[in-house]
Amino acid sequence: MVGADALFIECDFLRRYLTDFYSTDGYAVVTGEGCVFFADLRYFEAAEKRLAGSAVKVIEGGYREALEYAKPYHTLGVPYPFVSVAALRRYEEDGHTVLDCMPAFRRAMAVKTAEELSRIRRACEIAEEAFNRLLPEIKEGMTESEVAALLEYNMRRLGASGVSFDTICAFGENGSVPHYETGTRKLAFGDPVLIDFGCKFEGYCSDCTRTFLFGDDGKHGDFKKIHAAVLAAHELVKEKVTAGMTGKEADAVARDALHAQGLGGYFTHSLGHGIGLQIHEYPVLSPRGEEILEDGMVFSDEPGVYIAGKVGVRIEDSVCLEKGKIVSFMTKTDRRALIL
Amino acid sequence: MVGADALFIECDFLRRYLTDFYSTDGYAVVTGEGCVFFADLRYFEAAEKRLAGSAVKVIEGGYREALEYAKPYHTLGVPYPFVSVAALRRYEEDGHTVLDCMPAFRRAMAVKTAEELSRIRRACEIAEEAFNRLLPEIKEGMTESEVAALLEYNMRRLGASGVSFDTICAFGENGSVPHYETGTRKLAFGDPVLIDFGCKFEGYCSDCTRTFLFGDDGKHGDFKKIHAAVLAAHELVKEKVTAGMTGKEADAVARDALHAQGLGGYFTHSLGHGIGLQIHEYPVLSPRGEEILEDGMVFSDEPGVYIAGKVGVRIEDSVCLEKGKIVSFMTKTDRRALIL
Repeated sequence: MVGADALFIECDFLRRYLTDFYSTDGYAVVTGEGCVFFADLRYFEAAEKRLAGSAVKVIEGGYREALEYAKPYHTLGVPYPFVSVAALRRYEEDGHTVLDCMPAFRRAMAVKTAEELSRIRRACEIAEEAFNRLLPEIKEGMTESEVAALLEYNMRRLGASGVSFDTICAFGENGSVPHYETGTRKLAFGDPVLIDFGCKFEGYCSDCTRTFLFGDDGKHGDFKKIHAAVLAAHELVKEKVTAGMTGKEADAVARDALHAQGLGGYFTHSLGHGIGLQIHEYPVLSPRGEEILEDGMVFSDEPGVYIAGKVGVRIEDSVCLEKGKIVSFMTKTDRRALIL
Repeated sequence: MVGADALFIECDFLRRYLTDFYSTDGYAVVTGEGCVFFADLRYFEAAEKRLAGSAVKVIEGGYREALEYAKPYHTLGVPYPFVSVAALRRYEEDGHTVLDCMPAFRRAMAVKTAEELSRIRRACEIAEEAFNRLLPEIKEGMTESEVAALLEYNMRRLGASGVSFDTICAFGENGSVPHYETGTRKLAFGDPVLIDFGCKFEGYCSDCTRTFLFGDDGKHGDFKKIHAAVLAAHELVKEKVTAGMTGKEADAVARDALHAQGLGGYFTHSLGHGIGLQIHEYPVLSPRGEEILEDGMVFSDEPGVYIAGKVGVRIEDSVCLEKGKIVSFMTKTDRRALIL
């Protein structure tokens, strides 16, 4: 990073990115000499074993030792969005000035290594398998929370370390709220069901949304029309988006398709976001997305249409760019307007 | 807060504390005129409905509107440990100076209202009921992760919105690591089992630990002796700790008791921590705890003994101070060295 003498990293996911070692506490300091990871007694032994032979040097210690090590380096690169003002004040008291290193991390982290891709692939497989096991368990009268809990349990049992975000499970008209908070509404015959879910595997996230019907009460002409339009937009993105396009151009592929169906005004969020150690990373696929899409980037393809108080449909895969084209990680679940 | 002209709150749990309204985004601004909550379109309607008649005024808007509203107030109180440097830079660019308001929040939040106590009580009831339902489901060969997943599922089904922290489930010698990361070790006959768990109900946390045996292989003389000593220390705290003591004095009640049993050197953490919207709050019950304990405070009573690589026992209740004395929220689960 231009201008910084060293990187000083406290936040967990960047520490993990630098070291590939998970811990709830620790400090990574990167200088011209390489990366040093300060681990306390809880983690030191495991970190030394795991990182033996790697480019990361492990030293037993905590905040004091890490700061002492960083002392000769005047300007520290720290990730502004993930450093607290309390931490900043401590750096400043120690005589350092700081610079934001997050833009550099964002760019670097957007393009995944083969190992990262394989973990995301596994996180996607687990999510899909858990969803397929959920479907036959969904019964009339279950609450949104119960369905979400069962899906999360399935993901945990299949090897996920946890969810990658709070599961959204919305029945009926609740699907029309894009960031709906899962609640206690009970499932009734004929309800549309929207489930937005994902899990973590070895630190990496998956993200998936499916929208379907719990029984067909014969009043779903609108739902089916909207679902078909959203699915067509979702698939068009997979076909047309290529490396070299900007996030804005990718977003326009779906937005224009929905617009042509008279639904453009109901697509109230972005087409997608990068996915990795965090559920929202670079690149940004939105009307303001300036980043150029590249091979190895992983992001969501999630067009949606929301008619307030009535119905919402979102269809989302986690996908990556490979040899210039989109390849989906989602291969096991049905995107169609299933009727349970 | 001395010196601040207004409070500017972005972080979710403090926003919730001020408004008692849950949202993933929003801004609370507190001035001499009262508290104003800026909610975007996703939350505005629900917030207005929920907060009608309360002291909180709801305005539709986001960051820009909140900052515009705060413009006349030069010095903003912001919570340093929960404000990013990125946010700080934005305040500064807008001409504000900042002060840390977190110490004031910490003190205020340590003493709970009747409504807060009733939510914590419910979070504790759910956790205990989920644990009791778990016990008969624990079978030889299950992994730590599977047992944790089942317990979390039970809590969700009983009405918890989620866990209050990552469940710790440790079999056998893994119990000797106080902050063990739940893994894939399989349960064998004769294993000690340590489970540290809790959930959230309407924003508020519970925290509980139980240690027991999965079958008695007849080699558990040490385990039983340690368990008895930890349980005695845990109960002594309930008996002896009163309002008016410092956190340090409360900690000493358990530490001295374990010391008298020759186990003082193996009690490697603090006696307890405050519990509320966050799982770790004020007061701090440790050898450095200077806060005076007061009626209405909620905290954990969790002595533990850890013999590295061999065995660990921790027994924890969430408790509160009422009429000067400790009252436990945990009334349904067995603290003894159960043998499944």
